[in-house]
Amino acid sequence: MRNFDEKTITDAVIERFSQCSDARTKQISEALVRHLHNFIREIRPTEEEWAYGIDFLTRTGQKCDDKRQEFILLSDVLGVSMLVDAINHPPMKGVTESTVFGPFYVNDPPQFELGQNLAGNFEGDPMFIEGSVSSPDGKPLAGASVDVWHSDGIGNYDVQQLDKLGGFAGRGLLKTDAQGRFRFWTIRPVFYPVPTDGPVGELLRAQGRHPFRPAHVHFMLRAPGYERLVTHVFGAGDKYIDSDAVFGVKDSLIREYIRKPAGTAPDGTKMDKPYYYLNFDFVMRPAAAARERAKKSKSEPAGSTIAYVPK
Amino acid sequence: MRNFDEKTITDAVIERFSQCSDARTKQISEALVRHLHNFIREIRPTEEEWAYGIDFLTRTGQKCDDKRQEFILLSDVLGVSMLVDAINHPPMKGVTESTVFGPFYVNDPPQFELGQNLAGNFEGDPMFIEGSVSSPDGKPLAGASVDVWHSDGIGNYDVQQLDKLGGFAGRGLLKTDAQGRFRFWTIRPVFYPVPTDGPVGELLRAQGRHPFRPAHVHFMLRAPGYERLVTHVFGAGDKYIDSDAVFGVKDSLIREYIRKPAGTAPDGTKMDKPYYYLNFDFVMRPAAAARERAKKSKSEPAGSTIAYVPK
Repeated sequence: MRNFDEKTITDAVIERFSQCSDARTKQISEALVRHLHNFIREIRPTEEEWAYGIDFLTRTGQKCDDKRQEFILLSDVLGVSMLVDAINHPPMKGVTESTVFGPFYVNDPPQFELGQNLAGNFEGDPMFIEGSVSSPDGKPLAGASVDVWHSDGIGNYDVQQLDKLGGFAGRGLLKTDAQGRFRFWTIRPVFYPVPTDGPVGELLRAQGRHPFRPAHVHFMLRAPGYERLVTHVFGAGDKYIDSDAVFGVKDSLIREYIRKPAGTAPDGTKMDKPYYYLNFDFVMRPAAAARERAKKSKSEPAGSTIAYVPK
Repeated sequence: MRNFDEKTITDAVIERFSQCSDARTKQISEALVRHLHNFIREIRPTEEEWAYGIDFLTRTGQKCDDKRQEFILLSDVLGVSMLVDAINHPPMKGVTESTVFGPFYVNDPPQFELGQNLAGNFEGDPMFIEGSVSSPDGKPLAGASVDVWHSDGIGNYDVQQLDKLGGFAGRGLLKTDAQGRFRFWTIRPVFYPVPTDGPVGELLRAQGRHPFRPAHVHFMLRAPGYERLVTHVFGAGDKYIDSDAVFGVKDSLIREYIRKPAGTAPDGTKMDKPYYYLNFDFVMRPAAAARERAKKSKSEPAGSTIAYVPK
């Protein structure tokens, strides 16, 4: 086979997958080539534009390291991450909704005891966060992992300023107590721009978009027998609540970050200045429900509920 | 806008491009999101599969350096490069056809005088290559740039073995003489696998494909007033001539690499062993023809014929 033109090349590429022994790999490869070629035929790129695309993708990969995942960020700003989330976590009555993972999770985060302060050297207003983790029928989930990460009071994550901070901040792993409850002190996060010093920032500027995300605290919850829950709790009234750069906001995930006067905090801490208070009660989806959905989806391979933790 | 589901997210993302001031950027962005989301909705990736995709693209970017362009290679094996080529260089009667650029071009290649030997420390059979560069009406193009690169007699490019070779080999830039002719000695290239030590190799193995390209010599020709011509001359009878891993073969670009007995070569060189001989006469497309096509293509921005030279 040779002498392909812009119409015949697509089938020629797909024909090459005829010896592919894995049905799912074949299905994805064929769909990729069809959609990718349709995109190219629609936009009819010049060679210069194609070269820009190659260079953009190359620079996106090269911007990634153990503290920064620019391809996740690209997936986020193109709405792909929320689309994958919607496909994998359709709403289930009584279960906490999920949202994007984001590019700032760090493996092996520092561990804390309940009630401790995760703030490290973050600047901003103190915030006390508490809540519960339970099953849909109200059973408290004791010993559940509660993984938290968020920005400081200026709008930066710790991994964007590790030298200045001298270590992680606004980030930690806790376990729920026997009543399935968790509590910790930290700093109130504020709205912030996704990192704009890389290719994704270049893309947002070219597309005439702002890079901001409304204030939120990331949570990743894990408990044996339940589906991993990756979500945020957004601050009510944030100026970007309706234009999140990564499309992650859901009404059910918005809570007021309540400003409290100086005095005694819920855990007995004496506060000599005002602080913020946030409560959120999480309900996890039983893994059985995930398996049930998997059975109904014809394209679902094994292992679909395995947690993704970027390396 | 919030609470997007798998159907509403696409329009939500496209809506964000409403302030995009560049019509072409907006057009490409919208098409990208539509096709990318359609792909995702068709394959319904698990989160694990999505994470694999992120990781694959990241590793592809990180495999690139000044001697290796893995994203071009990915574009090549998915047929995208030949599709872009087909769109930008539709056949024109009497003009030499183009084909893929490939990942192995190096900026600022060594320059040679006509008749010199480009082989460096390459191993393989000697080959004498000559030919001409002309306009479609037969006018010889004097002083045209003839950029050549190819594999050795084992199937490796110089940039894959620079330490061993001690420098570039099988690569050089020449200028045509007053009659528009060029000639040089080198080593006969053979079929070879595209690099399989990176993500693209992993993809080819997963898809059950061989990685081979039929033997060819890369040419990039440039002359003022003519469209840059990126092409190959393939060796007739190669075992991979009908299954090039990057879909680049066109009948008009196949020539016999003729085996000649020991004796006096066309340039007078005395050969004490057999050698190979290749002739190819190139016809370049006038830039005016490119501009004419550009006028007819509604999506064509300025500068579409500018050469791409990877950094």
